[in-house]
Amino acid sequence: MTTAVYPGTFDPITHGHTDLIERASPLFSKVIIGIAESAGKKPLFSLNERIALVREATSHIANVEIAGFNNLLTDFLQKRQARVIIRGLRAVSDFEYEFQMANMNRALAPDIESLFLMTAERYAYISSTLVREIASMQGNISQFVDVAVQDALQKKFSAR
Amino acid sequence: MTTAVYPGTFDPITHGHTDLIERASPLFSKVIIGIAESAGKKPLFSLNERIALVREATSHIANVEIAGFNNLLTDFLQKRQARVIIRGLRAVSDFEYEFQMANMNRALAPDIESLFLMTAERYAYISSTLVREIASMQGNISQFVDVAVQDALQKKFSAR
Amino acid sequence: MTTAVYPGTFDPITHGHTDLIERASPLFSKVIIGIAESAGKKPLFSLNERIALVREATSHIANVEIAGFNNLLTDFLQKRQARVIIRGLRAVSDFEYEFQMANMNRALAPDIESLFLMTAERYAYISSTLVREIASMQGNISQFVDVAVQDALQKKFSAR
Amino acid sequence: MTTAVYPGTFDPITHGHTDLIERASPLFSKVIIGIAESAGKKPLFSLNERIALVREATSHIANVEIAGFNNLLTDFLQKRQARVIIRGLRAVSDFEYEFQMANMNRALAPDIESLFLMTAERYAYISSTLVREIASMQGNISQFVDVAVQDALQKKFSAR
Amino acid sequence: MTTAVYPGTFDPITHGHTDLIERASPLFSKVIIGIAESAGKKPLFSLNERIALVREATSHIANVEIAGFNNLLTDFLQKRQARVIIRGLRAVSDFEYEFQMANMNRALAPDIESLFLMTAERYAYISSTLVREIASMQGNISQFVDVAVQDALQKKFSAR
Amino acid sequence: MTTAVYPGTFDPITHGHTDLIERASPLFSKVIIGIAESAGKKPLFSLNERIALVREATSHIANVEIAGFNNLLTDFLQKRQARVIIRGLRAVSDFEYEFQMANMNRALAPDIESLFLMTAERYAYISSTLVREIASMQGNISQFVDVAVQDALQKKFSAR
Repeated sequence: MTTAVYPGTFDPITHGHTDLIERASPLFSKVIIGIAESAGKKPLFSLNERIALVREATSHIANVEIAGFNNLLTDFLQKRQARVIIRGLRAVSDFEYEFQMANMNRALAPDIESLFLMTAERYAYISSTLVREIASMQGNISQFVDVAVQDALQKKFSAR
Repeated sequence: MTTAVYPGTFDPITHGHTDLIERASPLFSKVIIGIAESAGKKPLFSLNERIALVREATSHIANVEIAGFNNLLTDFLQKRQARVIIRGLRAVSDFEYEFQMANMNRALAPDIESLFLMTAERYAYISSTLVREIASMQGNISQFVDVAVQDALQKKFSAR
Repeated sequence: MTTAVYPGTFDPITHGHTDLIERASPLFSKVIIGIAESAGKKPLFSLNERIALVREATSHIANVEIAGFNNLLTDFLQKRQARVIIRGLRAVSDFEYEFQMANMNRALAPDIESLFLMTAERYAYISSTLVREIASMQGNISQFVDVAVQDALQKKFSAR
Repeated sequence: MTTAVYPGTFDPITHGHTDLIERASPLFSKVIIGIAESAGKKPLFSLNERIALVREATSHIANVEIAGFNNLLTDFLQKRQARVIIRGLRAVSDFEYEFQMANMNRALAPDIESLFLMTAERYAYISSTLVREIASMQGNISQFVDVAVQDALQKKFSAR
Repeated sequence: MTTAVYPGTFDPITHGHTDLIERASPLFSKVIIGIAESAGKKPLFSLNERIALVREATSHIANVEIAGFNNLLTDFLQKRQARVIIRGLRAVSDFEYEFQMANMNRALAPDIESLFLMTAERYAYISSTLVREIASMQGNISQFVDVAVQDALQKKFSAR
Repeated sequence: MTTAVYPGTFDPITHGHTDLIERASPLFSKVIIGIAESAGKKPLFSLNERIALVREATSHIANVEIAGFNNLLTDFLQKRQARVIIRGLRAVSDFEYEFQMANMNRALAPDIESLFLMTAERYAYISSTLVREIASMQGNISQFVDVAVQDALQKKFSAR
């Protein structure tokens, strides 16, 4: 049976991410949500905070594991004996970046395959970046993220 | 275990298609190559010819089945108890069409999931349409298609 | 007050079109739905059939007029004393075609302005072409079009 | 009558922006140019400088108001009783970002509509970013911006 | 010195094509305008008519030759001892098709190089297809094509 | 004879760049590799390091010159009496940026022409940014860059 990794920064996890995990989980024996430390991007939430929020938002989905990583994605997969990378595609600009990454990863590890799901149209416009921006201006983000994420964002921005 | 359908017109099958089937076959318990009759497109090869050429070009790949169909793709999957549609993505224009189709198919059959593989960069520029055009002008297509397909194309165009 | 024209072939009208008209109608004093005869595209429905279906699907929207036309779009607007063309944008390929048309129309009639609305994400994957295809294969199109359009499509395809 | 907001950072205003405002102003009872403070982008010009430059470059256009804002765009519109957001589209990458924003804004405020104009082809390649870059290298920007903006840019970069 | 071929259907030649030839001609020792017979596209003008119109529209440009062809483009270049294909890029959809063709041509003839010029922004929205459509509806095409082409289009459409 | 400039940041030079220079060099009397200082991008390698790595990676190509520059690209060309800018196109997002730059440069210097080559498909996914990222995580970059570049990257990242 095939193990898949769904990598990302998840800063924070949105309903778009959760929908994708719900749809991917029945297709694989296990889906590992790989949370990239991404220190270079200076994420709003620490790796531990992001792991906790992903855990909360995906607790209803079976056969999911959550793990942080800060090495090369293909190295992370090999260590976890996974051979499939799952990614969501929302838009043309996603496509180009993902095309580049998928080919690069195949050059680095020919046994690993990237599989893409189209983001459900009703979540296609949601991004973690936009959610952070709206939350920073006290906008209502309840349609886009889990309750735990709403609370965490409100705390971050009221603390400023 | 998951059964996947790789649908297309395959008029004719190219190395790009074959590469995708080779990469997808280890990820699923079975891959059904679904050859759409596509009468409206007036294909160069008949459905039976296309089935025979696909059979020849994929004879080295395990766990593959080949079947023609002329009904709705989601109906074809349900009849075959398959829940995954596999499609290759080569370019942005592919992406838009596939995004539209994937969302439409999800509306028609919410249990069916579309998964996309990126076409290997060395095949990204090959299309059945271009191969037919080059063959019709006696160009050399040996880099793009199987020997059986070369022969079949030469017969079609010398017979004219 | 500004009069706007929403031109198209409407072969047939979908929920995507109707949603756009609903959103545009409060912004203008009048919205004329301009149904292009488009004889060159060999539409499935005659101009009169398309006018009747548009009338049925938009009967609940105030300040809408319906008119067929077979001349240059900018000539149609000038005759109707309208100065705004409304168009929906669903995807990048739409964008490119519309960009070309908008610039061409501005060259032909500098006083006429094209305004674009983004198709609501839940309708972004619906097109008249796809709806016709699904109906021709007896698929369920009730999520995509008005009841009158469903009936008309069923009659067309059962009559074949 | 409909009030529209044309939001942006305007760092600085270019001929592309001015052309859009000229074309939009006859279509609405009032066009409010909403200048986002955008502190996070570290603009070259302060909000007050940008307001002054926009005022100068648009002084010939009737029914225009200018206002800075630093809250959520939809909140700014509601406060100003405007129901239309105007945006220019130059390119595919604009399209994707704008599609995302328009859907997000509709989720936040369903009564507010985004309308897009295609940037006139002769201004489609101008961006504030490029203008700043060229000015910083003493290039000639007189074709792209108002005289007041030229002077302001020269002062900024000679002062360095 | 390098000989270049600028291939196309030119049905009919527009100001966009002429501008490209004017800009390319000083860069090469000779530019051959290669007019593809394209019988499959059912062109409005015969090959001989298209050659005559191109001759008229480019008579002011030095070092240009005009030739029809109906074989593979790379074969045409080799016969004419040319090693550069020139193509104009107007839009993203052009880009994708041209990317595919350039890679295919490189596979067929590795010594031949494709070079692309960006269509001048003021011609980016003009296409032969749009010009034919507007002329067929008696629209004014004088901004888009040469006088000889205007006359030829008027004759075609009045003769119908 | 025509002199061409191939400008870029080259931080560091990849096989994609080298392939493009190899293909462009026979088409022009001289190709000047123009290495932009790009201080604003905070490059990983200093201008002198980048010049040395480009020299090493292109030592096998005739009629190539290497020069750093920190002024406006069109000014650099005029000083070097070059009239052609060469750029590689890999993807749609490249296309849009390059379209904008080519039009802007034509506005600044109408005598200078931009010519584009399509990056060979087997290098289309390589970018300097990705190579730096992979090297920073000790990934194997030997397929993407010259030996000298590999060594230089390893030194940079082991020194950290």
